[in-house]
Amino acid sequence: MSDTYVFSVELLNRFCNDAFQKFGFSEEESQIITDVLLLSDLYGIESHGMQRLVRYHKGIEKGMIKVDAKPEIVFETPLSAVIDGNDGMGQLIGHFAMKIAIEKAQKSGMAIVTVRNSNHYGIAGYYAKMASDLGLIGLAMTNSEAIMVPTYGRLAMLGSNPIALAVPAKPYHFLFDASTTVVTRGKLEIYNKQGKPLPMGWALDERGHDTTDAPRVLKNIVEKNGGGILPLGGSQELTGSHKGYGYGMFCEIFCSILSLGMTSNHTHIGNKGGTCHGFIAIDPAMFGDPKEIEEHFSTFLQELRDSDKAEGQTRIYTHGEKEMEAYEKRQKEGIPVLKNTLLEMKELCDYLKMDFKQYFGELEEDAEHSSFY
Amino acid sequence: MSDTYVFSVELLNRFCNDAFQKFGFSEEESQIITDVLLLSDLYGIESHGMQRLVRYHKGIEKGMIKVDAKPEIVFETPLSAVIDGNDGMGQLIGHFAMKIAIEKAQKSGMAIVTVRNSNHYGIAGYYAKMASDLGLIGLAMTNSEAIMVPTYGRLAMLGSNPIALAVPAKPYHFLFDASTTVVTRGKLEIYNKQGKPLPMGWALDERGHDTTDAPRVLKNIVEKNGGGILPLGGSQELTGSHKGYGYGMFCEIFCSILSLGMTSNHTHIGNKGGTCHGFIAIDPAMFGDPKEIEEHFSTFLQELRDSDKAEGQTRIYTHGEKEMEAYEKRQKEGIPVLKNTLLEMKELCDYLKMDFKQYFGELEEDAEHSSFY
Repeated sequence: MSDTYVFSVELLNRFCNDAFQKFGFSEEESQIITDVLLLSDLYGIESHGMQRLVRYHKGIEKGMIKVDAKPEIVFETPLSAVIDGNDGMGQLIGHFAMKIAIEKAQKSGMAIVTVRNSNHYGIAGYYAKMASDLGLIGLAMTNSEAIMVPTYGRLAMLGSNPIALAVPAKPYHFLFDASTTVVTRGKLEIYNKQGKPLPMGWALDERGHDTTDAPRVLKNIVEKNGGGILPLGGSQELTGSHKGYGYGMFCEIFCSILSLGMTSNHTHIGNKGGTCHGFIAIDPAMFGDPKEIEEHFSTFLQELRDSDKAEGQTRIYTHGEKEMEAYEKRQKEGIPVLKNTLLEMKELCDYLKMDFKQYFGELEEDAEHSSFY
Repeated sequence: MSDTYVFSVELLNRFCNDAFQKFGFSEEESQIITDVLLLSDLYGIESHGMQRLVRYHKGIEKGMIKVDAKPEIVFETPLSAVIDGNDGMGQLIGHFAMKIAIEKAQKSGMAIVTVRNSNHYGIAGYYAKMASDLGLIGLAMTNSEAIMVPTYGRLAMLGSNPIALAVPAKPYHFLFDASTTVVTRGKLEIYNKQGKPLPMGWALDERGHDTTDAPRVLKNIVEKNGGGILPLGGSQELTGSHKGYGYGMFCEIFCSILSLGMTSNHTHIGNKGGTCHGFIAIDPAMFGDPKEIEEHFSTFLQELRDSDKAEGQTRIYTHGEKEMEAYEKRQKEGIPVLKNTLLEMKELCDYLKMDFKQYFGELEEDAEHSSFY
């Protein structure tokens, strides 16, 4: 395993805010982008936090992400909107779109907003949580560069296509946020940075065979040589491959189909991102007393956690529980950052003419080595 | 493999209609129930067609399914409804509820209907298809007797909890319909009737260990001894177990939570079914020209089918394609019925004082043995 450094939330918050303002985003915009990235790291989803900075850096540098672009509503009803992201920063477009879905749902009961021409927007769960923080049910989805090979295929045709669902509950909200692939590309990037072989059943090589070779799969994805990541359920119908592929399609429909945007297989060609998102907000008051519904749900979640464990297991988690525990721990103890990620952050500083040392000290001598993992 | 018999759609249609009218359902009601069951067999999902008749037979006999019950709307907005099924026949309640969702979506753009106190309603895809047949996007979900063991658990706490999604497309609609478990209980019943061991990774025994013993798992489910079927993604987070468990929760939220009905772990205790359903209908006109959206989607589906195949594979299917092919074949060639299922149908005839021979001839001498499989 490569070295891991630990930094406080405050430090990383300041660093990200400064960096995005240097890129040309406003103070408010930089805080939204930073919030999305930091929530991911706080939740323990380190694949989508600091380690993704390099992709935004490169995206902006190449002009794929346009700093000045503003999302616009191109079609609208009281219950829906289609938004053109105009190739802007995904987090800003996602935040804009989910806010519209929430406002419409608060007024009318529910709403669906679909988005085209955006870019990578971080964790889908952030946007779903925006709704549940206000007592609504929130759904957020996004397509991505094609990385999922459909059942019996050889080429990646769908994205990681996460579906996130947040529902108010006590003592903490239900928050399901998962790619419809077995794992995300971010997880492959982590394995790659750590120099570890992939578990079998995660990825296919360029001929459509199983492989454990992370750099090869990642290279193939970028160069579109074939291969990619398997749908949830693996490579065979016997283990449910067609189901993961089906959930990937579910996501694609609410993102790229309803928005008339680019399906995953057409995104990220040349210098065009073209990512599409989908957002749904639902007011539980459409079904009765929201408090009663929340209590009913909280009872079920507690029953799940209290349920008998398999031999050798000590806990059954409900979705969002691990994230809340990581959140509390990392708020107190700081956020771990892999050395390779820190090197990318140093490169970012060089590019933006920021003083890396001012934030993180001397990389080799001063950084605190952690045994967080 | 046990013997398989083949009967025409017309014969099975007549038989089912007669049987359900004998149970006391009206002509119209019997046709709805029959349509749901036959569509399943026509689609090649034989786990949910004729082979399920025995469950409806036993359910009505025990009084769990009340023949005279009528579903009623207990809460309503222009975009939503909560329906109490009053322990009636699931297919009739499902049909009633999806019709309401469709009518509301046609008027307002979209609608969600949630149902409590119902019973097993057959394939979820039937109800999703009701929407796509009218140019809408349809979603149908249902919980069930608890059979899914949550990740790291020992007891079944969720149902098979299928999510079905139907979306208009050419040359045939997209129709995804799958349990959120690796496989359905119906598949286990088929293996059981065929006397075949289960593939590893499908089910857990009463201590939470992997097992291939279908009768044992099915017995444990009924007697609530522990064990059950694994979520899509298997038993480990490494293979995405928490994701299948998450989609199971997704289903539960739209079925039992919003309706304040019974979560799967509380259904089917004593003589109470308590099954809950969820239905969503969405008018694509809320996002632009429905024809343009349909064409855009159809193009993507064709791209998927045309995409390069893995070495050794000849086809990539899109969801609903296999079902349409089976439908055309079975309309022409008839529907295969396992001998054990036919024996159950004979028992049903005895119970209802119907003349089995009038429909199917002499079981041993006259039935046509088929090599359909």
